[in-house]
Amino acid sequence: MSAYPLLSRIDSPADLRRLSRAELKQLAAELRAYVIDSVSKTGGHLSSNLGTVELTIALHYVFDTPKDRLVWDVGHQTYPHKILTGRRDRMGSLRQLGGISGFPRRDESEYDTFGTAHSSTSISAALGMALAAQIKGESRKSVAIIGDGAMSAGMAFEALNNGGMPHGETVPDLLVVLNDNDMSISPPVGALNKHLARLMSGKFYAAAREGAKSVLKNAPPLFELARRFEEHAKGMVVPGTIFEEFGFNYVGPIDGHDLDSLIPTLENLRDTKGARFLHVVTKKGYGYKLAEADPVNYHGPGKFDPSVGIVKPTTPPKPTFTQVFGQWLCDQAAADARLVGITPAMREGSGMVEFERRFPQRYFDVGIAEQHAVTFAGGLACEGLKPVVAIYSTFLQRAYDQLIHDVALQKLPVVFALDRAGIVGADGATHCGAYDIAYLRCIPNMSVLAPADERECRMALSAAFQQDHPVAVRYPRGAGVGVAAGTDLAPMPWGKAELRREIARPVPGRRVAILAFGTLLHPALAAAEQLDATVANMRFVKPLDTGLLLDLARRHDAIVTVEEGCTMGGAGSAVIEALQEAGINLPVLTLGLADEFSEHGDPAKLLAMMGLDAAGIERSVRARFLDERAGRLELVQRPAVNA
Amino acid sequence: MSAYPLLSRIDSPADLRRLSRAELKQLAAELRAYVIDSVSKTGGHLSSNLGTVELTIALHYVFDTPKDRLVWDVGHQTYPHKILTGRRDRMGSLRQLGGISGFPRRDESEYDTFGTAHSSTSISAALGMALAAQIKGESRKSVAIIGDGAMSAGMAFEALNNGGMPHGETVPDLLVVLNDNDMSISPPVGALNKHLARLMSGKFYAAAREGAKSVLKNAPPLFELARRFEEHAKGMVVPGTIFEEFGFNYVGPIDGHDLDSLIPTLENLRDTKGARFLHVVTKKGYGYKLAEADPVNYHGPGKFDPSVGIVKPTTPPKPTFTQVFGQWLCDQAAADARLVGITPAMREGSGMVEFERRFPQRYFDVGIAEQHAVTFAGGLACEGLKPVVAIYSTFLQRAYDQLIHDVALQKLPVVFALDRAGIVGADGATHCGAYDIAYLRCIPNMSVLAPADERECRMALSAAFQQDHPVAVRYPRGAGVGVAAGTDLAPMPWGKAELRREIARPVPGRRVAILAFGTLLHPALAAAEQLDATVANMRFVKPLDTGLLLDLARRHDAIVTVEEGCTMGGAGSAVIEALQEAGINLPVLTLGLADEFSEHGDPAKLLAMMGLDAAGIERSVRARFLDERAGRLELVQRPAVNA
Repeated sequence: MSAYPLLSRIDSPADLRRLSRAELKQLAAELRAYVIDSVSKTGGHLSSNLGTVELTIALHYVFDTPKDRLVWDVGHQTYPHKILTGRRDRMGSLRQLGGISGFPRRDESEYDTFGTAHSSTSISAALGMALAAQIKGESRKSVAIIGDGAMSAGMAFEALNNGGMPHGETVPDLLVVLNDNDMSISPPVGALNKHLARLMSGKFYAAAREGAKSVLKNAPPLFELARRFEEHAKGMVVPGTIFEEFGFNYVGPIDGHDLDSLIPTLENLRDTKGARFLHVVTKKGYGYKLAEADPVNYHGPGKFDPSVGIVKPTTPPKPTFTQVFGQWLCDQAAADARLVGITPAMREGSGMVEFERRFPQRYFDVGIAEQHAVTFAGGLACEGLKPVVAIYSTFLQRAYDQLIHDVALQKLPVVFALDRAGIVGADGATHCGAYDIAYLRCIPNMSVLAPADERECRMALSAAFQQDHPVAVRYPRGAGVGVAAGTDLAPMPWGKAELRREIARPVPGRRVAILAFGTLLHPALAAAEQLDATVANMRFVKPLDTGLLLDLARRHDAIVTVEEGCTMGGAGSAVIEALQEAGINLPVLTLGLADEFSEHGDPAKLLAMMGLDAAGIERSVRARFLDERAGRLELVQRPAVNA
Repeated sequence: MSAYPLLSRIDSPADLRRLSRAELKQLAAELRAYVIDSVSKTGGHLSSNLGTVELTIALHYVFDTPKDRLVWDVGHQTYPHKILTGRRDRMGSLRQLGGISGFPRRDESEYDTFGTAHSSTSISAALGMALAAQIKGESRKSVAIIGDGAMSAGMAFEALNNGGMPHGETVPDLLVVLNDNDMSISPPVGALNKHLARLMSGKFYAAAREGAKSVLKNAPPLFELARRFEEHAKGMVVPGTIFEEFGFNYVGPIDGHDLDSLIPTLENLRDTKGARFLHVVTKKGYGYKLAEADPVNYHGPGKFDPSVGIVKPTTPPKPTFTQVFGQWLCDQAAADARLVGITPAMREGSGMVEFERRFPQRYFDVGIAEQHAVTFAGGLACEGLKPVVAIYSTFLQRAYDQLIHDVALQKLPVVFALDRAGIVGADGATHCGAYDIAYLRCIPNMSVLAPADERECRMALSAAFQQDHPVAVRYPRGAGVGVAAGTDLAPMPWGKAELRREIARPVPGRRVAILAFGTLLHPALAAAEQLDATVANMRFVKPLDTGLLLDLARRHDAIVTVEEGCTMGGAGSAVIEALQEAGINLPVLTLGLADEFSEHGDPAKLLAMMGLDAAGIERSVRARFLDERAGRLELVQRPAVNA
């Protein structure tokens, strides 16, 4: 490890704290090179981590970690932190099955004080830790490190509003470090960002004050007045920043790549008490020219050659569901002037770049603000527009109440384009879209669609758009089986499932029907070939096609449901509810995600581990219904009570 | 209606707009008297409505409603609005079955532009309406009226952050009226409130500016400099308020009970463009001395004699579940120093007044900030404390992502005391705790308990507190059957249901077991007496007592589940999932809340309408399983596939 003479000696922050201030600069250079080298081999987040190299070193240098608590917001900027806290040699396993996570995890390291990945949680968590320390009489420090993009979410404001004030006699001892790189994943939006830009672009207050002084000093008796006016103003009238208004002592902005600024400032802040706010300015991708020039594309690259950079594939890959959505959105918008598109800071991730370009007046990036996004859509819908909210399944959890209270209760026609439904792969449990079917189908007036391929996704979106009530269309991360999506706006027939395969040689007592919801239709079809089972592409979780369901129930001996979502309360659960409601007692096997948080890793491998590939589905069906050795399963049958 | 000579002539805001300015003052007096008279007869919200009499008159006088849109945040202050918009004579039916709602409802009046009841949604909705008007080229105005308490919720900040900025070339034409009465339901907390207090207590900026001018004007050449410095400062450096920092043009504070201030100010604001923010100061309970003196108790009184005021009942009523929780919280806190209690602005509603008094250092009212409340609890739990978050079922919807991502995923021991689970009565659908079982049981690491009476509630809370993972204990609004809660901290045996009744004379083919979750155990027991059915008090939705369940399944011919929650994905659904997983095919009837939003009205009447009283349960079980005429129900039976 001769390329990293200093870094190779750092096995914990204690080692780091033994270095001289001069050595820290070399360490920063080595750490930056190590991050580039690691990420180029594994893929992962790059720009954000290059931006936090010096800040990470300074924080671990100044604070007594792990006794002092660092809470990293979102956490995709924690690779330097991981490398310095004993995980240097595990970086090659990053985001892979069995490897370390791309985010902080409490079960991975004592230095990971709070698991993050969704935005804007750090101030709340660090405030909890700070107050807990005080209640317990412990002297530890608590630090939240949060990006400017994450500051636009309401919960960060809730925490600031709460954190700057005394709690009874307890005054929070909390440091919030704002890592201001003028970038969330998409370019920043909103008033707060403008405020930060103004703070950064020249310290107007100080400049104006100096300017006034330099003129006034020629009139000596007034100089004192000016000084007093200033102090009066500063203390009582003129908040320097929003953050001071929230009760935080604001310091900054300082250069987040300059260890000679960072370390003394953090030392000063460490040795003070109360709610402090340090504004640090960094550059995403800092120190790697390609990433500095294009931080969006270097936000989360795959593997690449650091000397060449990201190379666009010569043969275009299969279009992703995200792209299918993006194209549909443009086409539907062209056909219907009522369509408006809303994203909570996920323009790229949700496939809305082209839509923004073509329909700027009907495109709304509201920032990382899912709650507002949904109620805002409700307001637009009240006036006769047709909002499409593009949102990841896992992030819609942030707007659950708004979906219920502001949209569904009022039966407003909002389309939710739920990307990343199901397993997401390298991002792991925090981003897994496992629960949307369960948490959406119980809401009155909602419909939930699960298209099976690209063509169906487009048809489902068109069908959703035609409804006069809220509809969620869920589709997974990445590409489907490759069915051309088409260019028309023909809707999927509402509420109708589709029979995709019938049993060739029915054997009474062994007739199994597989009901697939979503893209797992394809492994289900493959399994059905082996099993000679019937397969229905259900398409609709709600309204469920009970007509087809009951027909299949009458003609089969057992039902199998397959979905890429939690089985508890999921689509399979809807099927057994419907059968019970119809008075049909039939054995049903519900396949889907088990009642545990998923791991990170390759999605195909994960699905196979969960038994949701063709072989796994076949195996489960045989074990439950068709394997003669499966006698361990007790099948109790009773005559109908009133029969 | 001679007591209301002017008001009796106002059937719509158009009538109001024909009055002279002088007449408006008389109208205000009549309207205030009418509100007091109405609420004293029906019960409902009082203090908030007395505070908005003049503001409501002024808004309808100045704006061209319903073409212009008024969006009332929360909406419990809209009785004057309802009275002036054609619902005067329906006020006697307020909050009663078939009567008008206590909140705005789009299906009730064209003047109710957006349904509200949960806090802090109005700016988002009004912004949506404002931008929709501009997209459609309509000249209507959009106004959000929001209280200072509601401003502490993150989504209000998300909306402000978004609302003050241009959207592409579209600049929002939006007026936000802050109705600042220095009160949410509980006393206000947080930095924002301090900011507002500072703004109200004397217009420091203006005073300081005037002071400086009066000194400087003796030095003529510098006067111009001072003026220019001021302008520079005002425009670029010195935000007058947080709201200006968010891009809103701030006006105020003005007296919200003075029509001569309100009307010209609103007229001016109506005739300007862009994002405007009007700070209005009102007094809760204004004009009714008893309510002014005690706005908390007059927030939502029952019926009372206006000349006497609220009279405390001489015989104390049965303790509510809220009180049982409050007592348990104090007792458990006395026994365990790790307990900390958290409320999002619901100290009274959640029964935490005594806890705050006795344990001020361990009590945290975080303001209307459910998201922050839950993640903050996560932070406290990380440090070894044992947080209890007291929150209504319907409001936990606001913190769903935080519960999943920050608490459950990290398996942190947070207790959620879910008050108002199930039907809530007069508040109606917006406050109904219908979905918690469905949205919680699908989350890994979560447990969900549904105690059946007061004693069980206490035992369930004690059991929850002992766990090392998150647990929700759900209990309904109001009192239970009256079982003494006790004073000990004995836990409910974990994961164990309880057999409460066995069939006296089993008739094979007609043996029914009723599985009750929560307080509907008692009507279920009454029904079982008539039906001669077995009854289990399930207590645990998750983990389900599958041992008892399977035992009952073996000994009965049909299962009935009863819960005060949505049947889709609810506890009954968990039962049929468990039966299927065990390979048991038995007819199951799931009774609970149907897939529709509930109405407001008397809870007992509503439950009876939904078939969830004893008679209704008996009727449903007979119809499904025991009535010989129920031949319309098709009960299909198949042999087990591998049998």
